[in-house]
Amino acid sequence: MFIGFAEAETFLRNCKDAVIITHRNPDGDCIGAGFGLKDILEQLGVRSRVVCHDGFPARYAFLTENGAGEDFEPETIIAVDIADTKLMGKYEEIYGGRVQLCIDHHISNKAYADKTLLRGDATAACEIIYDLAVYMGVKITRHCAMCLYTGIATDSGCFKYDCTTPRAHEIAAEMMRRYDINFARINRYMFDVKSEGRMKLESRINELMELYLDGKLAIIAVTQDMMKEMGIEMEELEGFAPLTIQLENTEVGILMRERPDGVFKCSFRSAYDVNVSAICQTIGGGGHAKAAGCTVEGDLESAKKFLIGAVERALN
Amino acid sequence: MFIGFAEAETFLRNCKDAVIITHRNPDGDCIGAGFGLKDILEQLGVRSRVVCHDGFPARYAFLTENGAGEDFEPETIIAVDIADTKLMGKYEEIYGGRVQLCIDHHISNKAYADKTLLRGDATAACEIIYDLAVYMGVKITRHCAMCLYTGIATDSGCFKYDCTTPRAHEIAAEMMRRYDINFARINRYMFDVKSEGRMKLESRINELMELYLDGKLAIIAVTQDMMKEMGIEMEELEGFAPLTIQLENTEVGILMRERPDGVFKCSFRSAYDVNVSAICQTIGGGGHAKAAGCTVEGDLESAKKFLIGAVERALN
Repeated sequence: MFIGFAEAETFLRNCKDAVIITHRNPDGDCIGAGFGLKDILEQLGVRSRVVCHDGFPARYAFLTENGAGEDFEPETIIAVDIADTKLMGKYEEIYGGRVQLCIDHHISNKAYADKTLLRGDATAACEIIYDLAVYMGVKITRHCAMCLYTGIATDSGCFKYDCTTPRAHEIAAEMMRRYDINFARINRYMFDVKSEGRMKLESRINELMELYLDGKLAIIAVTQDMMKEMGIEMEELEGFAPLTIQLENTEVGILMRERPDGVFKCSFRSAYDVNVSAICQTIGGGGHAKAAGCTVEGDLESAKKFLIGAVERALN
Repeated sequence: MFIGFAEAETFLRNCKDAVIITHRNPDGDCIGAGFGLKDILEQLGVRSRVVCHDGFPARYAFLTENGAGEDFEPETIIAVDIADTKLMGKYEEIYGGRVQLCIDHHISNKAYADKTLLRGDATAACEIIYDLAVYMGVKITRHCAMCLYTGIATDSGCFKYDCTTPRAHEIAAEMMRRYDINFARINRYMFDVKSEGRMKLESRINELMELYLDGKLAIIAVTQDMMKEMGIEMEELEGFAPLTIQLENTEVGILMRERPDGVFKCSFRSAYDVNVSAICQTIGGGGHAKAAGCTVEGDLESAKKFLIGAVERALN
């Protein structure tokens, strides 16, 4: 059942505790939404814990350092920024069947929760959570503001991409005025600072980038072996997806990252009008029109061939 | 004399024509401010022309393509985003001594104009011009909105840097709501799209970057010979300055670009708390606390040595 702010408020004010699930391969939006919502629940006197199949990347330590909460047997399960229980990793089996509330901005949301607060036009789950907190009149701490700003900034490419809403800008302005967040430092860590390993990897991007379909498709594929050679973690490659559409004629870019289990996590980007969410949905993934994802099994060459075929069908 | 909006309005409403000067090596803010102000003057029935010592880079064609205005002998001279007449190039001699109005956001502004509308806390000259247009109640066209958005976005690193004001976000929101600007495409051209030459150059950044002062200073120097070898124009290197502070421990980054006349144009960036405007002012330049610039003569090695010394003094 899809719900609005009034029902979401009633739900949150009446829950006794909550486990908040974030998606695997966590990014700024689900971490910001998880820890931001944890702060909000704290204001309501509700004990909560943020869980994730994977560890939270070190560069989000400024959001996670106070801890994700003590372990307890929860009555309430909330999912944030998760369109499909498949994205929960091990928590799909533990909690996936009894999620009471889902707060999400993916139009591809599978409505797996009892109640779903979905705003498909929001920049980020964090945008929805901020507006919900304002609606509820609950106090927003500086830490909460930093969480929610981080989610909005990361999901919008720092207000760069099509998915950026006017509301995202208004929220950023309010956060700067009211909560004195150190946004420039946040953005430096989210977008600019990198390890020397990553710097070296960037210098190999040109060699790694392959163009297909008359240059309309660009693929950058990074295997586990290459990550080991570069001394780099998979998570550090998160920000590379936009580089796949850096050439003017590229319509679709795909960043393929091999997971330790050999499966390729594929991040799609659309430079102009191609709906990559639609492409990903045809092969078991989903996301947004300009940024979507899926996983592909098999060896590198056959995985590439499969993706090229899927994009070619979409372009025709 | 420093003036406020009321006096600036009176001035603009009473001028008969205007040449609008933008600074040499034009960037998004001076181009956006120049062409945005030209649109505003058009609404007031005032003929104007935008001039620049250098040509306007091709990637700003979406702002400049309707033309900079016919040549005429002006009564009124206006400068935008220019802190010092030295930055006017050949127009310093022609108009530098009789600038009646300057609209600027550089705290280092030399107050060379009869009237200076200075807001040192504004993200961009375009932010001031937008607020002035709203104050005046003059119609803002979609083209004008795109000009002013571009200036705000480029000077703030797409809302990433410290110099971003809450007002910059509010203006962006208003522009998206009211004028339906194609901001994502603008940002794509300003921040993401590059030539293959630039892509190749990026892959050489690691080799070009040199660290000094225990890694607190990073310098990337690009000579005319290197630009020729890469088939790249000096202007295409504009966006490289932020890369000089991409390593976590770097405090100050300098992008040195050799001009055709052999002089090095140096763009400084501060990662944290060092005031690079203060450093640049000690060597004849200026700018903002986190982004400033100067020029240095001499051969590459002695120019570097000079800059390292200046930064070392500032760090101590």
